[in-house]
Amino acid sequence: MAATPPASHIDLLERPLFASFATVRPDGAPQVNPMWFLWDAEQGVVKLTHTKVRSNYRALQREQRIGLCVIDPDNGYRYLSLRGTVTDIQDDPEGDFCKTLQKRYRGHAEPEVADKAVRVILTVTPDHFKVH
Amino acid sequence: MAATPPASHIDLLERPLFASFATVRPDGAPQVNPMWFLWDAEQGVVKLTHTKVRSNYRALQREQRIGLCVIDPDNGYRYLSLRGTVTDIQDDPEGDFCKTLQKRYRGHAEPEVADKAVRVILTVTPDHFKVH
Repeated sequence: MAATPPASHIDLLERPLFASFATVRPDGAPQVNPMWFLWDAEQGVVKLTHTKVRSNYRALQREQRIGLCVIDPDNGYRYLSLRGTVTDIQDDPEGDFCKTLQKRYRGHAEPEVADKAVRVILTVTPDHFKVH
Repeated sequence: MAATPPASHIDLLERPLFASFATVRPDGAPQVNPMWFLWDAEQGVVKLTHTKVRSNYRALQREQRIGLCVIDPDNGYRYLSLRGTVTDIQDDPEGDFCKTLQKRYRGHAEPEVADKAVRVILTVTPDHFKVH
């Protein structure tokens, strides 16, 4: 069953902050990288733009469970960490979702997403939140 | 063989920033949490203060490989991510190493580390660095 983020820390999902996105590699080792994300409050899911050519995309083919952590840049002791599952991967052939995140993070979108042919939208359904 | 961090991003290890620390739980799912850390340049290892009562300490009993990511708070597009192995776990019975990190992060140490009986020092030997 999907988990709901605590209201006290929902701002960490709403603000255009960088998430640390953890995946498990095919050899079983974890890896963690910064990622843009969008919190879809209506569906209660996190959406990320990604590409088919990154190593952690290949990792997700084998292990769909992920971890995601957002630290408050104004107070490093305040954070939201979630565990969840990548429940959907959709192509983003025109890069529209990538542009949505460009707007969220940069304030404007590029006219063209250069790597749109390999762009995908990851949907993460959270199953556990931890906040501090 | 231990890897060496690129000189261009060594400041991200030297500054008292928060690291996102990824472990793999016994059920195989990743989790990621903020952590204090110290870069030991002489030994080429990352040291973290931790306790025996946290869930990811138990995870480390089974899987010693970890991921760690430090994002530059002044520029979210600049980061250092490493993969490594917890090669040593030592008790910290007087909390001395914990105090070292309190000084690094808060500028001063508490007179007494309340949970010193369960405090440990994790040593991570990096085997791969990725920077941007």
